[in-house]
Parts: sequence; structure tokens; C-alpha cells
Amino acid sequence: MASYFPDVTANRFPPQHPLQRNLGFIFDVDGVLCRGEDVIPRAPEAIERLRRGGKRVIFISNNSTKSRADYIAKFERMGIPVTPDDLVLSTYATAQYVAQERPGAKVYMVGAPGLAAELELAGLVLVEDPFQAEYVVVGSAFDGTGRIREDNAHRITGALRALYHAGAKFIATNPDRIFPAKDGVIPGTGAVIGALSYMLDREPDAVIGKPSKYIVEIALSRLGLSPGECAIVGDMDTDMLAGKRLGMTTVFVRSGAMTEEKLHSLGVKPDFAFDSVIDILAWEGG
Amino acid sequence: MASYFPDVTANRFPPQHPLQRNLGFIFDVDGVLCRGEDVIPRAPEAIERLRRGGKRVIFISNNSTKSRADYIAKFERMGIPVTPDDLVLSTYATAQYVAQERPGAKVYMVGAPGLAAELELAGLVLVEDPFQAEYVVVGSAFDGTGRIREDNAHRITGALRALYHAGAKFIATNPDRIFPAKDGVIPGTGAVIGALSYMLDREPDAVIGKPSKYIVEIALSRLGLSPGECAIVGDMDTDMLAGKRLGMTTVFVRSGAMTEEKLHSLGVKPDFAFDSVIDILAWEGG
Repeated sequence: MASYFPDVTANRFPPQHPLQRNLGFIFDVDGVLCRGEDVIPRAPEAIERLRRGGKRVIFISNNSTKSRADYIAKFERMGIPVTPDDLVLSTYATAQYVAQERPGAKVYMVGAPGLAAELELAGLVLVEDPFQAEYVVVGSAFDGTGRIREDNAHRITGALRALYHAGAKFIATNPDRIFPAKDGVIPGTGAVIGALSYMLDREPDAVIGKPSKYIVEIALSRLGLSPGECAIVGDMDTDMLAGKRLGMTTVFVRSGAMTEEKLHSLGVKPDFAFDSVIDILAWEGG
Repeated sequence: MASYFPDVTANRFPPQHPLQRNLGFIFDVDGVLCRGEDVIPRAPEAIERLRRGGKRVIFISNNSTKSRADYIAKFERMGIPVTPDDLVLSTYATAQYVAQERPGAKVYMVGAPGLAAELELAGLVLVEDPFQAEYVVVGSAFDGTGRIREDNAHRITGALRALYHAGAKFIATNPDRIFPAKDGVIPGTGAVIGALSYMLDREPDAVIGKPSKYIVEIALSRLGLSPGECAIVGDMDTDMLAGKRLGMTTVFVRSGAMTEEKLHSLGVKPDFAFDSVIDILAWEGG
């Protein structure tokens, strides 16, 4: 890990700008670097200058349907060079969480092919028989139009049976409720969590995505830095809450889905707030 | 209504057995008259003798997928003669509830053809465009194997949009969580309620089936009797709770899914408990 990221040892003495003290930066993606397919102006430049300045940079997203390989193409279109090691999606983070808890565990999955890919890359065994499952892992079961994926039509019942009959553990990629889409809102992973929780009168044993700390802990572990050495940059209360839970520096950007007023009304006060990611570089005087 | 059921005026003076005082009997179906396709021994005889003795009899069920027309065949197979007027299923009761609150309302439905049939029979207008909906009515979206019905694959999102964008009211046929089936449990209406409630952080505006009092109130209104003149006969805590909420006589039968010990452990004490419906007729000395 230490060889993959730049050597930041020289930066361990505090420079002048309090934000510049941070050796690592964890960036949320949607609303911070892009809005859908549109790149936030100068976001690629901001990442490049941070890296050139010796900072370690990593990207996190609650996305529960895509693998890191899927996200490489998205970052290429944005003009931000990345490898899979720079990406901590909730698919990957969930796979890591389960594999650390029980290596090679048998998993019954609700979700998209990107989730299946990451679970298998982590050495977990996907099972189709709910009665064989040690874990149930749930992501979004819906496509971009809001239809249940054809290959998920039986999977809410499968997950129910794995939890009810086989005593499987219940892990959710993220707690996201709804997303805007072309013809109206569409369900997030929360639809599946809600269905199973109501039927079984039981919450998930763990939720990996923000505002949970798990996804951020996995990003920190990849960076090889402690929470006090890193800032989290995001456009939502969930980003700030995950960072605060771990004692990180929190940086809100106004380029995303949530206004600063809304953030404050939720009782969340970030350490810094900027219009856009490029403004983080103010410490360079430009 | 008074002409449809027998004249019970002559019975308004209390006879000796306290249960016999009741002029009307509301029967749950599964676990009381039958177990799946098997008739409970002497259940048809019990119904016949009650009717012959001048009692008004009506049948209620939380079933959210069948119309009353569908249930006629089930009763014919059991050997209990009924007309649709003798049946208060949660499909029918929900349709009555909505039609009484807003006659001719535009309804977006999640559920089976039996629910659609009852909504239309009550003069409600089924809409396919969620943005047109005044009400969302939800029943079970799953088939007997636990797959989401093909014609419901887009309907959880449709219901979400009707509630989120169009401000529709949210009505559930029943709150049932899970049911036993051949290969393991299958989801009840609760899966849909849970998905929508989690996404919207909102409970249904009304739940019609037991243990709610609504379905029983509709049965009482069809009987033309007050709660104090009627007994409810069931095999579950939900039957007893609905009856107690309304001040009815409650009769538990041990022929169904719940043991009397389980019932008591839930803190529910019925007025009477029998092995089977035929034992209700003990007052006749037979």
C-alpha cells in the first residue's frame, strides 16, 4: 500500500493552512467531481494539483450497482486518471467487510452484476440456494427506469428465506432511500432493506455505505493514514457525518445535491465549506 | 341489507349461554374453516346450524390477492354455500374504505388482479400514471412461488412516485408480513409496505385488514348489527385484537396456525376458546 501512494512522510509537520495539514483526501464522487455525466468545472485540475502537491487521494461512493472496473470508464470520461485501487465503492467496501469477517463466506445477493463481481473478487462464494447462505448482501434491485431487475424478481424472497430459515447475517451496501431519475424518483437499496426489515422485524446487522463509518474506514486503510490525517470532501450530510464519526476534517462543497442551509438545518456543521473542489487549493494562493 | 340476512329481532332477548346472546358471527377463514385446501372437520355443519338457528354469519379474510368472486369457488369446494355478500376480504374492504372516503377516486395499485377487480367494482378508477393518482393501494406483489408478479415489476416505483410526487394517500390492504409456502416463506403485503415506508419515512395512512378494526367494521355494517351483538371467531391474535378493539365477543379456535399458549404469551385473552368451530354449538347440547 505504502508503495502505491506517494510518500507523504515529509508532510507530517503542519504547514500553515489548517486544511493543508491533511495528508490524505477522501472524495465523494457525484455532486463533488461530477453531476451525472457533467464534470464539475476544474475538478480534474483540483485532483491533479493535490496529487502533484504530494497528497494521497481516494474516491468513495455509495453506488451499489457498479464494480470498480465499471467506474474506471466513468473517471476516464471525466479526465481523472484512476486505477481500481483509487476507488472505494459500496460494492467493493461491502465485499471487503464480509471477506474480513468470514473469508470465503457463502453469500446470497440481492442486486446488480457490479455487486456480484466485487463479491467474487473478494473471494466470497455466491449461492443461489438461500438455505446455503451465511450472509445476505443487499444492493439496489431496481434498474434505471425503476423496474425490478429481471434477475432479481425472486431475490427478495430468496433473501427473506436465507435470513428466516438459514439464519444468515444481513448486510446492506448502503442505506440510500431514493434517487432522482428522468421520469421521477427511483428506489435505492433502501427499498430492499425496508421490505426485509418489515417482514422480519429486524434491522441489517451492518450498513456499509455512508453515513456509516465502515466505507470510510476501508478508504482510510487503503490510504494507510489515520482519520486525523485525512479530510473527507462531500456534498451531503452523509459524507460529513461519516467523517465526523471518525474524527476527520470535513469539507462541504456547494456543487452537489444539498444546499448549505439544508445541511445546517440538519444540525451538521462541516469544518470547511467551498463552492467547488478547486477552492480547496486556495492554500496554494490560486 | 336487512332483507338479505335472516330476521334476528326475535333473538334480541338474551338466551342462556353467553355466547348464544350474539346475533351475528364473523368468521375468519384460514385456520378456522379450512387449512389450505383441507376443510376443518364439521365446519360446514357449524355454519349451517348457526344459520338455521337464526344467526347472521359473515366471513372475513386478510387475503389481498383474491376478489370475492374468486373466493366463491373456495367456499363451494368447502361445502359452505355463500354469495359475494357473505365475504369481506381485505381486497373488498379496502375498496369500500377508499370509495367511502372519496367516491370514484383515482387509484394506483400494487397487487394482484383480484384487488384490481374489487377496486373497479367499488367505482374506483385504476390509473397507470402515478402522477394522476389520488390513492396508492397496496396488496401483495408476489406470486405463490415468491417471485414478484411480472405485471408488478414497475409498481413499487410507480407507488413511490404517486406518494412522493403526486401526494397520494397510502392505503394498505393488510399488514401481513410472511406466509408459509412449499419451498419456504413468501412475502405478504408487508414487503411492499416496508419498501415504501423506508423510502419515504412514512407509515400507511390506513391499514384495512386485521388487526385493524376497519375490515371488521365493514363486516358489521354488512351484518347490520352493532359490535356488542356480534362475536368474532379466529385462530390468530390479530382476529382477537380486532374484535377487542371494537368491543365484540372474541372466540379463539385451536384449529389454526397459533397455539393458545402463544396467544396468551402475546397478552391476548379471548372470551372463549374451543378446539374447533363446531364446539361453538355446545349451547345446543350437540
